[in-house]
Amino acid sequence: MNTLLSSSSIENTTIVNPQGESLGSIKDLMIDPQSGRVQYAVLDFGGFLGIGDKLFAVPLEAFTIDRTDERFVLDVPKDRFENAPGFPVNDWPSNPDPQFVEGVYDYYGQRETYLRTRINEPVLSN
Amino acid sequence: MNTLLSSSSIENTTIVNPQGESLGSIKDLMIDPQSGRVQYAVLDFGGFLGIGDKLFAVPLEAFTIDRTDERFVLDVPKDRFENAPGFPVNDWPSNPDPQFVEGVYDYYGQRETYLRTRINEPVLSN
Repeated sequence: MNTLLSSSSIENTTIVNPQGESLGSIKDLMIDPQSGRVQYAVLDFGGFLGIGDKLFAVPLEAFTIDRTDERFVLDVPKDRFENAPGFPVNDWPSNPDPQFVEGVYDYYGQRETYLRTRINEPVLSN
Repeated sequence: MNTLLSSSSIENTTIVNPQGESLGSIKDLMIDPQSGRVQYAVLDFGGFLGIGDKLFAVPLEAFTIDRTDERFVLDVPKDRFENAPGFPVNDWPSNPDPQFVEGVYDYYGQRETYLRTRINEPVLSN
């Protein structure tokens, strides 16, 4: 098991690229309460790329953690975000959409993580 | 996949028993950022049982969700909390402790959930 972080401390954490340039911050975590899994982090890039009205969905497993500076590092070239999975600030997905989540993992090269962690997941009615 | 909830909306959610009596609220979620799993929810029972200085660790999978009233239901008799896993308000566990987490799942009858969801979990150094 790895060091645990509280959800409230992850919210508002700064995201930087490996060069230490700020990309934005984590706005929230979307969680499946029945399986106990974080499906994706919601990133707010602010004015970056002029896409301040869009939020991005990124797998939590795509980040590495810079514990010294208490920030997350995302090793993704800026131009990759132009077509990255996301949604408008005022139109968060209200219904679960497995294809959207799978696409999020695919986009960040985390397909194996997606498959490995879902293989034993229960799907409960509630 | 089940309906997703944001971590910020889960924080401060009211916890009731099946009779609708308030037990307290969710104070935070402890997350393993490398595996993307919620290891446990941190419950604040307030003055309930006179244990306001203790927080309780409960698996997220132990709750059912009352979507109508936007609250979580925990079907555990009150006297079960007297010896339930937790920690003092001012002394949160700082280091990951797999045995503590396993004990939390055991205490709420979620051993099978614990084993099923961990079997394919990666343990990454970071």
